[in-house]
Amino acid sequence: MRIHVHTGTGREQPITSELWAEAARRAPDGGGGHAVSFGATAEALCEALAECEMVVFTNHLPRPLPAPAPRLRHLFCTFAGIDGLMPLDWLPPGVGLLNNRGTHADKAGEFAIMSLLMLASHMPGFVADQRAQRWNRQHGTVLAGRRLTVVGLGSLGEEAARRASQFRLRVTGVRARPAPHPACERVVGTDALDAVLPETEFLLLACPLTPATRELLDARRIGRLPRGAFVVNIGRGALLAQDALCDALEEGRLGGAVLDVFTPEPVPPGHRLWTTPNLLMTPHVSCDDGASYLPRSLDILLENLRAIRDGRTPPNLVDPSRGY
Amino acid sequence: MRIHVHTGTGREQPITSELWAEAARRAPDGGGGHAVSFGATAEALCEALAECEMVVFTNHLPRPLPAPAPRLRHLFCTFAGIDGLMPLDWLPPGVGLLNNRGTHADKAGEFAIMSLLMLASHMPGFVADQRAQRWNRQHGTVLAGRRLTVVGLGSLGEEAARRASQFRLRVTGVRARPAPHPACERVVGTDALDAVLPETEFLLLACPLTPATRELLDARRIGRLPRGAFVVNIGRGALLAQDALCDALEEGRLGGAVLDVFTPEPVPPGHRLWTTPNLLMTPHVSCDDGASYLPRSLDILLENLRAIRDGRTPPNLVDPSRGY
Repeated sequence: MRIHVHTGTGREQPITSELWAEAARRAPDGGGGHAVSFGATAEALCEALAECEMVVFTNHLPRPLPAPAPRLRHLFCTFAGIDGLMPLDWLPPGVGLLNNRGTHADKAGEFAIMSLLMLASHMPGFVADQRAQRWNRQHGTVLAGRRLTVVGLGSLGEEAARRASQFRLRVTGVRARPAPHPACERVVGTDALDAVLPETEFLLLACPLTPATRELLDARRIGRLPRGAFVVNIGRGALLAQDALCDALEEGRLGGAVLDVFTPEPVPPGHRLWTTPNLLMTPHVSCDDGASYLPRSLDILLENLRAIRDGRTPPNLVDPSRGY
Repeated sequence: MRIHVHTGTGREQPITSELWAEAARRAPDGGGGHAVSFGATAEALCEALAECEMVVFTNHLPRPLPAPAPRLRHLFCTFAGIDGLMPLDWLPPGVGLLNNRGTHADKAGEFAIMSLLMLASHMPGFVADQRAQRWNRQHGTVLAGRRLTVVGLGSLGEEAARRASQFRLRVTGVRARPAPHPACERVVGTDALDAVLPETEFLLLACPLTPATRELLDARRIGRLPRGAFVVNIGRGALLAQDALCDALEEGRLGGAVLDVFTPEPVPPGHRLWTTPNLLMTPHVSCDDGASYLPRSLDILLENLRAIRDGRTPPNLVDPSRGY
C-alpha cells in the first residue's frame, strides 16, 4: 500500500522512518512491505495525496483535504479522541477514519488507580498542608470494598476497571450499550447513571466526548453524588460542568478531584481551577506514555493494515454516527 | 486470661470494650472468654499489674513498669515499629513483647504503589506547576519492566512487592536473611545492597529501624543510585540520611521522593523538608487505615492469645536481639 505520514507540527516527537522500521520488525508479517513517505509540510501532503491510499497524521490535518485524493481509502490519526475532527463532513466519500484507541490503555489504567489511591489517602489535603508547612495527620482507608463508577468502558475505562478490581473496589460500569464485563460487578446503561450516582464513592469519567456525553456530569448530577464523593476525569474536559465541580469542591460537598482534562486547554494563569481546594491537576497527560506512545500507535496501525489486506474490517475504524 | 488494656492518651481512638467485643465475635473461638479491663491512667495500670497476665498498650507505657507484676507474661503494643521502646532492658524477665505487625500491610501496599505511580507520572512536578499556575506537559511512563528495590520484606515490604508485581515491575528484595519470594525476581542480603543500587530505578524503604538499618541509605549509597532514581520511605525517618537526600533532590541527582516518615516528627515549620523540590510529604500515615486499624490490631491480638492458649509461640513475638 502507498502510505503517507503527515507529521505536522506541535507534537513532542514525530513518526520517523526509524520508528516505522522498528514497528515493522515487531509485526508478525514484517510490516507488510508498504511504500511509506514522511513529510511535515502541506506541500508534501498535496503531492502524496495524488497517489496514496492511506494518510497517517499525528496532529493537524488540513481540512478539507488540500488536494484531490483519488486513491485514498483510509486516514489514521495517532490519537483516540476525535471530537476535534467532528463533524466528519470533510471526510471524502468512501474514506474510513481510524484512530489509535488501545494505545492509551496501560497508562490510563495506572493513572486512574493512582488517582483513586491519592483521593482515598487525602493527597490533595497533604499537598496543601506541605505548602503551608503544616503537620496534619489524617488517616485514609484502603480501596477494598468501596464503590467506583466508571463511565465509558472503552479501552481506557476497561483497563481502569480491571486495575480497580485488583484492589477489590466494587465497580459499576456505565456505557451506552450495557453488557456484562469481567472487571465490573454490574454494567448499566447511560440512562441508569442517575440511579447509581447516590451510591458512588469514586466517579471516573473515561468516555469519548460526543453530543450525548457533553456535560454528562452537570450540576444536577454532581448534586446526586454522596457528600465527600471523589471525581476523576481522564476523558475530555467538556464531559463535566467545570464551574459546578469547582463550586462543589469549594463548598466541601465533594471530597476531592483529580482532573487531567479541562476547558480550555492549556488552562490559562489566573483560572479558578488552579486554586480550587482539594483539586489535583495534571496537564492532559493521563493516557500518554512518553516512552511507548508512538511505537504502540504504529503497532496498532500495522495491525489495522493487516486487517485491510485480509479484507477484514479494521478494528480501529471510527463510526462517524457515534463519534468514536 | 486476665488482660488489662492501657489506652493511655494521644492516639486518635482508644480501644474500647465495644471494639473488643466485636473482635471476639469475629474470632473463631468467640474471643476466648478472657477477663479484660480498660484504663487510661497510671493508677488503673498499677492496680491491674498486681494480677494481670497481659497488658495491651496503644501508645505510651510507663517504663520501667510502675508496680510489681508477678503474673505478667506478655505485653502487646498496637504498633509495629518498636524502635521507640528499645533497648528492652525495662522488660521484666520472662515477659514477652508482642507487636501488631500485619495490621499495616494492605494500606502500606497501596501507599507504596501510589507513591511509585506518582513518581513515574511526574506528580511532584505537576503539584509545583499547579501552585505556579503553569501548564507544563511532561509525559510519564508505565511501571512495567522498570526496576524496584524493596528494602525489608516484612509485612509492609512483602505486600508492596506483591502490588508492584501486579504492575509488572521487576522487583529486587533486600533483607537480612535472603530467601526466594514469589513477588520478587530475586532477593539479596543487606550486604548486597550496594551492588543493586546502580540498577535501581525505584527504591522503597520498608524495614524496621534497628542499629543495623539506621541511616542505611546514607550519602554514599544515595550516590550509587542512578541519576533520576526515585526514593520512597514508609519505614522510619532515620533509615535515611535526610539532609543528604534533600541535597540530592535539590541538585536534581534524584528524580523525586515520597516520604511518609521523618526526623523529627512532627516536622517543624521552617524545616528544609517542606520546600525541597520534587519531594512529596505525608504525615506518617502510609500504613494506618483509619477505618480498620484498631479492629485489625485486635484480630491479631486474639490470634496471638489463641497461640498462647494452645502452647504455641505467638506469631507476633518480638525478638529482642533483632529489635523486630
